[in-house]
Amino acid sequence: MSRYWSSIVKNIEPYVPGEQPKDRKYIKLNTNENPYPPSPRVLEAIRRAAGEDLRLYPDPDCSELRETAAEYYGLNKNQIFVGNGSDEVLAFSFMAFFDPERPILFPDITYSFYPVYAKLFNIGYEIVPLDDQLNIPEEKLYKSRGGVIISNPKAPTGQLLPISSISKIVENNMDSVVIIDEAYIDFGGESAAGLIDSYPNLLVVQTLSKSRSLAGMRIGFALGDSSLIEALGRIKNSFNSYTIDRIALAAANESFRDEEYFRSVSAKIICTRERTASELKDMGFTVLDSKANFLFISHPDVAARDLFELLRDKGILVRYFNKPRIDSFLRITIGNDSDMDYVLETIKNLLQSCRI
Amino acid sequence: MSRYWSSIVKNIEPYVPGEQPKDRKYIKLNTNENPYPPSPRVLEAIRRAAGEDLRLYPDPDCSELRETAAEYYGLNKNQIFVGNGSDEVLAFSFMAFFDPERPILFPDITYSFYPVYAKLFNIGYEIVPLDDQLNIPEEKLYKSRGGVIISNPKAPTGQLLPISSISKIVENNMDSVVIIDEAYIDFGGESAAGLIDSYPNLLVVQTLSKSRSLAGMRIGFALGDSSLIEALGRIKNSFNSYTIDRIALAAANESFRDEEYFRSVSAKIICTRERTASELKDMGFTVLDSKANFLFISHPDVAARDLFELLRDKGILVRYFNKPRIDSFLRITIGNDSDMDYVLETIKNLLQSCRI
Repeated sequence: MSRYWSSIVKNIEPYVPGEQPKDRKYIKLNTNENPYPPSPRVLEAIRRAAGEDLRLYPDPDCSELRETAAEYYGLNKNQIFVGNGSDEVLAFSFMAFFDPERPILFPDITYSFYPVYAKLFNIGYEIVPLDDQLNIPEEKLYKSRGGVIISNPKAPTGQLLPISSISKIVENNMDSVVIIDEAYIDFGGESAAGLIDSYPNLLVVQTLSKSRSLAGMRIGFALGDSSLIEALGRIKNSFNSYTIDRIALAAANESFRDEEYFRSVSAKIICTRERTASELKDMGFTVLDSKANFLFISHPDVAARDLFELLRDKGILVRYFNKPRIDSFLRITIGNDSDMDYVLETIKNLLQSCRI
Repeated sequence: MSRYWSSIVKNIEPYVPGEQPKDRKYIKLNTNENPYPPSPRVLEAIRRAAGEDLRLYPDPDCSELRETAAEYYGLNKNQIFVGNGSDEVLAFSFMAFFDPERPILFPDITYSFYPVYAKLFNIGYEIVPLDDQLNIPEEKLYKSRGGVIISNPKAPTGQLLPISSISKIVENNMDSVVIIDEAYIDFGGESAAGLIDSYPNLLVVQTLSKSRSLAGMRIGFALGDSSLIEALGRIKNSFNSYTIDRIALAAANESFRDEEYFRSVSAKIICTRERTASELKDMGFTVLDSKANFLFISHPDVAARDLFELLRDKGILVRYFNKPRIDSFLRITIGNDSDMDYVLETIKNLLQSCRI
């Protein structure tokens, strides 16, 4: 604490991202990264963009990328906003749509960045507890005073709300903005992007970090009515005119164009997820039904924290949340098949030795 | 305006960046970009970084880059913060060090993003008018209630405050943070970075956009006491954990390592600036003494707005600010020698035809 800190700095509790170990000794299944590399066409586009034009500012409006994305999503360019990762898009959204005096709603167990944003921007919030099966009690999200934000599939459980439930939440909040954070939507969920033309208060947030294997490039999107997109643009242009560098623009553009690669990678991950879930259930784990690139699991015989430490010792990094209601669970990112074989084998051995 | 906009969005007046024409027909001297390409070693580093690791998040702490930069600046790693362009660094700084109830001070003619940040974050501010020669009346920046921000060399005039004046401003504001925005310091000014160990309330902001020819990559820095850097880290980690992508990290790292290229490019620009200034003076222009990569010029016989339009017609893009006190000036970025030859020739011809 320093006397030069603003009252905001003194009061916030920053988000803590998952470990990013630098020694690379781990099978890294703790931050939901894609085990497969980005499309070779994306890497080639990056190399092509590494030229003298980097001396020039990037296009502050990201026009070409927004057009490419619009085509992919079946929307218009003015329904698309681009940000430096979906975290930046979410931060701008809190500034653009929520007000201090009108509290927003989000579940007690969700992406842990939401309360951080709320504190940073002094937005009041009310917590809606998930039920005992960690499902969202939808009706409790109806008629918020200031807005709603949920992740779908849900973080950190991976459970998916059907699109009919999303519609109901949105149409029961016509006086405020409902944000659906779809970071993991490409692993088996149906996007709410299709509802945008019906609801002027719906904002859908996506990212290229997960299903497009581009966590290292920082590209996120918001999709919504053009007046919501205009609001995000006004915030961005009052904060940092050029948030996306020229290389990231080139990479993102090419990523949307190589749909085949992305479909094939997502299909592989879904397949590995289903097999992994099935084997974990055979070992006695509770495995929540996941439509994301991770599984949320719990075992009656081993404390999650212990299993977390034991796996770490064996060179496997997963995520443990030391929080009420979910401290009996581990979140394991789906790696490639050989990663998951090693994980399953290791867990099997650990369970056997625990039982002795 | 939409009923879904927050009160912030309704009230802000976003910054308007200089034009980024897409047709590339212009000699582009309107956004102070460097006319020379980035170091070939930087481009090679980008190509090398275009690999499968892009599937992984970047290092949120930018450790390696901060160590490289620390060595360059003669500071410690914990005295260095990295952001997505110096604009993001400035935005975070407004949140980290300024409070709504304590107004900050900045000159009436300065980087036009400062009042935008102030409105965005609801920070009160008092404007200190420059004198008739557009110099800063230093004493009026002493004893601010909430902090001070100035650019040095000054935007948009290019004039440099000597380091002795910076010291005095900082030591007369020991109760609040003084931000020195040094976007253009490498074109002949002395950085205040050397004062950091003496003043816990000094924050120096720099960028790789100008002197390092990397406007397209978005990399900015703050240098200051470790407690100020900690505050910026807390804001960043409440906003977006990973603001710098892997490619930008690699590019920035290599840029600091290739000091020779950067020195030689900066020397060329300084040389072209002095020659251009001298020839413009010969044509009757008032040319403010610039230590930046641009000139701020005014002519008694031609209105700046007219000259701006005439130059645009001739394929030369410069910056005209339609603002009181500076609407008789144009800001012209220093291009390469052949760009400036064409600009000088064109201006000479325009002046002759205006006089007829």
